[in-house]
Amino acid sequence: MEDIKQIYEKLDFYDKKQVKIGGWVKSVRSNKEFGFLDLSDGTCFKSAQVILNSNLKNYEEVSRLNTGSTIVVEGEVKLTPQNQQPFEIVASNIDVFCATDATYPLQKKRHSVEFLREIAYLRPRTNLFNAVFRIRSVAAMAIHSYFQNNGYVYVNTPLLTTADCEGSDQMFKVTTLDFNKLPKDQDGKVDMSCDLFGKTTFITGSGQLHGEAFALAFKKIYTFGPTFRTENSNTKTHANEFWMIEPEIAFCDLETLMDIEEDMLKNVVSFVLDRCKDELAFLDKFVSNGLLDKLNKLIGSKFTRIDHKDVIDILIKSGKKWEFEPTYESDIAKEHERYITEYFNGPVFIKNWPKDIKAYYMKVNDDNKTVAAVDLVVPLAGELIGGSQREDSYDVLVARCKQLGIDTDTIDWYLNLRKFGSCVHSGFGMGFERLVMYLTGVDNIRDVIPFPRTPQNCLF
Amino acid sequence: MEDIKQIYEKLDFYDKKQVKIGGWVKSVRSNKEFGFLDLSDGTCFKSAQVILNSNLKNYEEVSRLNTGSTIVVEGEVKLTPQNQQPFEIVASNIDVFCATDATYPLQKKRHSVEFLREIAYLRPRTNLFNAVFRIRSVAAMAIHSYFQNNGYVYVNTPLLTTADCEGSDQMFKVTTLDFNKLPKDQDGKVDMSCDLFGKTTFITGSGQLHGEAFALAFKKIYTFGPTFRTENSNTKTHANEFWMIEPEIAFCDLETLMDIEEDMLKNVVSFVLDRCKDELAFLDKFVSNGLLDKLNKLIGSKFTRIDHKDVIDILIKSGKKWEFEPTYESDIAKEHERYITEYFNGPVFIKNWPKDIKAYYMKVNDDNKTVAAVDLVVPLAGELIGGSQREDSYDVLVARCKQLGIDTDTIDWYLNLRKFGSCVHSGFGMGFERLVMYLTGVDNIRDVIPFPRTPQNCLF
Repeated sequence: MEDIKQIYEKLDFYDKKQVKIGGWVKSVRSNKEFGFLDLSDGTCFKSAQVILNSNLKNYEEVSRLNTGSTIVVEGEVKLTPQNQQPFEIVASNIDVFCATDATYPLQKKRHSVEFLREIAYLRPRTNLFNAVFRIRSVAAMAIHSYFQNNGYVYVNTPLLTTADCEGSDQMFKVTTLDFNKLPKDQDGKVDMSCDLFGKTTFITGSGQLHGEAFALAFKKIYTFGPTFRTENSNTKTHANEFWMIEPEIAFCDLETLMDIEEDMLKNVVSFVLDRCKDELAFLDKFVSNGLLDKLNKLIGSKFTRIDHKDVIDILIKSGKKWEFEPTYESDIAKEHERYITEYFNGPVFIKNWPKDIKAYYMKVNDDNKTVAAVDLVVPLAGELIGGSQREDSYDVLVARCKQLGIDTDTIDWYLNLRKFGSCVHSGFGMGFERLVMYLTGVDNIRDVIPFPRTPQNCLF
Repeated sequence: MEDIKQIYEKLDFYDKKQVKIGGWVKSVRSNKEFGFLDLSDGTCFKSAQVILNSNLKNYEEVSRLNTGSTIVVEGEVKLTPQNQQPFEIVASNIDVFCATDATYPLQKKRHSVEFLREIAYLRPRTNLFNAVFRIRSVAAMAIHSYFQNNGYVYVNTPLLTTADCEGSDQMFKVTTLDFNKLPKDQDGKVDMSCDLFGKTTFITGSGQLHGEAFALAFKKIYTFGPTFRTENSNTKTHANEFWMIEPEIAFCDLETLMDIEEDMLKNVVSFVLDRCKDELAFLDKFVSNGLLDKLNKLIGSKFTRIDHKDVIDILIKSGKKWEFEPTYESDIAKEHERYITEYFNGPVFIKNWPKDIKAYYMKVNDDNKTVAAVDLVVPLAGELIGGSQREDSYDVLVARCKQLGIDTDTIDWYLNLRKFGSCVHSGFGMGFERLVMYLTGVDNIRDVIPFPRTPQNCLF
């Protein structure tokens, strides 16, 4: 059996060849003598045109097929350079495996994304989600290729953890206990020692700490896996389950980290531009006008590097009326990100952030007021990547933990990394869905995840 | 800064070049005039020999460095074709960033794997785990490359699920509720509607059902992600968190599935053999004699395909005394797998299994006694892959669910796939750790997972 993709890729080879294609009917138009059947097999964005002649033994049956019916077509490829489609398949035999009826939820018309979320198990058959999920797959390969080709070791850091240093209220608890028969200790509290791991266990929201341990052995590592947050918020950019890429690099300071982020992002965008031409053209036309321009421009641009305080200066000097007043001590709001990327007309690395609004593991700068952290903000999408040089001094790190009330008992091994072969090292985290949204122009995270999980919403 | 790997790969290019290498000291031997420092930077299995001359300004300090100390070396590369190592770096400057002391847990000697598990955050710095985890990374890339190059779409199926059709006793429950303040309904039962998703939620043990939905849109898909089982068993082959690869292919029957499995496995093994020569040579020598032979033999072998009942015939006819008596109705024990792979002197596909010991979603054969399932067993490792043709008839599948007491409410969408464009389709699951154990010859799953999770054991 052939893939439709193969024929598109080798038109001359397949000319006049017999092929066998399994796929799903998109539409049929026919009269008494002949018909056209639009067939998709999912192997590429494009479908194939099948020519039906009335001498097919089941011509009547095939002519009446509904969208979504499954058939296996045998026939001859005929190149049609004069047509919009470069080839047709002249069917000699068509086996109907499954004919759908009027209850089939997808019809040959445009459905709303809201409706399609309700049938998430069928939506990859639509043009929109065919494009989005193929780009998601190709982007994942772009990421693996980039890091592996550059000598990074892929590490599968654990999801189950008993360390709650990220703030256990943001993590799901995991248990094998029966909620209705919880064992109690002598104080009447739930006795977690009876659980499978003998302790309260969480699903982690980051592989960074474990990634650092491996970076201090392999120099360059990356993780790429699912991540979980319990946030009870229904926005276009939040999901409770999503994927993250978290590289960690030894002997790498903040400047080198920015070099890597810029190089990685440009490579990933190029990789997808190269391989998803049909999908991107469709999205540019129907979902996000200017998408291709945006992506092509990113590849050619030089990313600006600027300190947080200098960004604040620009925001203040702009004279604009802000919803959130920019200050030297605070975070950058969405409106600020938008302004600053327009100001520099391209991606901007905002670096050296106020210490008090950033995490304990970030390297404290000599000023003792800022940390060597960097966020990458890009036009039209805002923050895409967050990273930092990691604190490499045992004493400074322990002091920071104490200051912030972080329980050091469960991360003593992480702290020890600063005694046992510590080095200047840095890393970043990139939300994969955020990248896919950027690459596709789709503005709701629910539409770039195969089966999204959001509060009150764990269907399929 | 250069990677040691780069120098090994381009010896002539680097000859007489100045380089800068950050890394960790493996050992130092020195006298008053000069010394040798063995430096690893983790970028390849091999280390580099650094020549210390007493005119280094901190020669004394460097001479006394302990294993695991972090340094940055500047110096000139000198090819030494007459020596065992093809080059040396003649140091002109060495910055000591972090000198370890006697408390450093790794010394230049062989440590037991049991001891190394207790310091899992440091063990990737040992030769054994450097080899194992690099092979794990390369094997992951081999899998992605194979499927992407063959037109498969990578799908990130969800881990959080409210469907408990796999048997909820084998799945972790996930919650945001406080165990000590559980909300109760009017019957005094825990009120799960107060949880984040409004229902009891699990972490799934398989992405297959969701994978099938995507295969019926993209024809060929694969998943590759973490998986969880609550099994309370301490064996060398069980962990509570592990990674799985689950491809699903539309228009694919059992015979074609075996073709794919065989081709995939040979490709993955070849990919690793090509890229991990040093690592495999080390493992062949120190961990599993004959490893390279085993892997090379696999690539060249033709996998046997045989029905379950014919395997039972062979086992019975063998006249051997079995711990588990082989019968036509039962599973194949480890001892049987071993016998049958020796009997055929290579990998064996055992297919068409008794219906009653296999899962509800497997295609029932015309005999109504067996299902179109197939397990791949390989010499010295046993079962590596399990797969099946999936039941494509709505009526048969619903009847099977009822028979087996499976709640169809939460998987109605999965059943609907059989009404909406059903087709002959198949898929398989391969435990990634089992593959890595096969590739490395390491016999304990705890030693192929960066931070293993087993009952009572969720450290780091």
